[in-house]
Amino acid sequence: MLTKGALRRRLPPETLSRLPAYRKQLSVLAAEGTEVVSSKELARRLSISDAQLRRDLSYMALLGRRGLGYEVETLLEITTRGLGLDKTWALAVIGGGSLGTALARYPGFAKSNMEVKALFDVDPGKIGKMIGQVPVYDLARFPEVASQLGLEIAILTVPEDQAQRAADVATMAGLKGLLNFTSVFVSVPPDVKVRSVDITSELQQLTHLMRFEALPL
Amino acid sequence: MLTKGALRRRLPPETLSRLPAYRKQLSVLAAEGTEVVSSKELARRLSISDAQLRRDLSYMALLGRRGLGYEVETLLEITTRGLGLDKTWALAVIGGGSLGTALARYPGFAKSNMEVKALFDVDPGKIGKMIGQVPVYDLARFPEVASQLGLEIAILTVPEDQAQRAADVATMAGLKGLLNFTSVFVSVPPDVKVRSVDITSELQQLTHLMRFEALPL
Repeated sequence: MLTKGALRRRLPPETLSRLPAYRKQLSVLAAEGTEVVSSKELARRLSISDAQLRRDLSYMALLGRRGLGYEVETLLEITTRGLGLDKTWALAVIGGGSLGTALARYPGFAKSNMEVKALFDVDPGKIGKMIGQVPVYDLARFPEVASQLGLEIAILTVPEDQAQRAADVATMAGLKGLLNFTSVFVSVPPDVKVRSVDITSELQQLTHLMRFEALPL
Repeated sequence: MLTKGALRRRLPPETLSRLPAYRKQLSVLAAEGTEVVSSKELARRLSISDAQLRRDLSYMALLGRRGLGYEVETLLEITTRGLGLDKTWALAVIGGGSLGTALARYPGFAKSNMEVKALFDVDPGKIGKMIGQVPVYDLARFPEVASQLGLEIAILTVPEDQAQRAADVATMAGLKGLLNFTSVFVSVPPDVKVRSVDITSELQQLTHLMRFEALPL
């Protein structure tokens, strides 16, 4: 794990939140044929300060070459591996409502080496059907299907009162990552990672910013 | 704006990100008939430290009553107004793909006083149809429909190469808030607020956490 070009530590949350943007800009630079980028130019493309960029990069590797800039390929490799994009991840969607259905068809996953391999629901009217390329299974069959398909991450798009149950089913089947689209907190064992996408919370924060624009920060 | 029970300032990002969770727990407490809550109990329900909670609340109002706790109703009112939930917000979805369609039908908005009033697309096969309760309009008619329906916030679910155009259409029609589901950065005038929901970025951060679990932070 600790070879050249690999992360030597987990990234702090703020740096981690910028890592996908770093990788994207580095991909663009590589595609443009740029071999070396200055910290100033990379910071400009990310709309962050030079100091912030240097701090972020210091967490990633010992590759600051003051005055010379950074090797684009090396940094791209580090960020790609740092984000786990050097392998394909097998995803399950739990909950076949309109959001779960949209995610099963979501074209953006392919670019990130993410593949939705199965959707689970409890509705007999949905089980056995296909949503795009994705088969719909009975949630009761989760452990069996998870081991067959090598499922690694579950996306929760169930109603709020089903969220903990869905999390339990996924973690008891050995999955170590959950992306929670419900607006409730789910408890998981300590070795399981959860990230939340709470659409209404984002909208509420947006309306705060719109309304209190005129107040001092 | 600066009446009792109102925010006196914009909240820092970290505190703001917790505000929806504060409001949710306060709603639960109010529904349980609790009139006063200790900082310890509220912090426990939010899974944050007591010190963090006191700091968050210090931004919201001068209502710390050491030893006595906080009035649930007052704090609920402050957070409700702070999140803009004391009025209904008129939303537009731009982009009638599977994600846009799912959001037009999304039941979670109603609880936050958010109402999707229109969906916009450029596909003649979609324009003029209904998605659930939501009519689909030609994107070219955005300014006219926005003023008719009083649209305030646009949710962008268009392909990446259409994101800036969609943002331009919305802001030129006077909308001051965008929720951006595309994974590209959009430029807006300084008085317009943007929040992003980047699903693949969240997944990439999740796989980082899963893979580097064993490394020191």
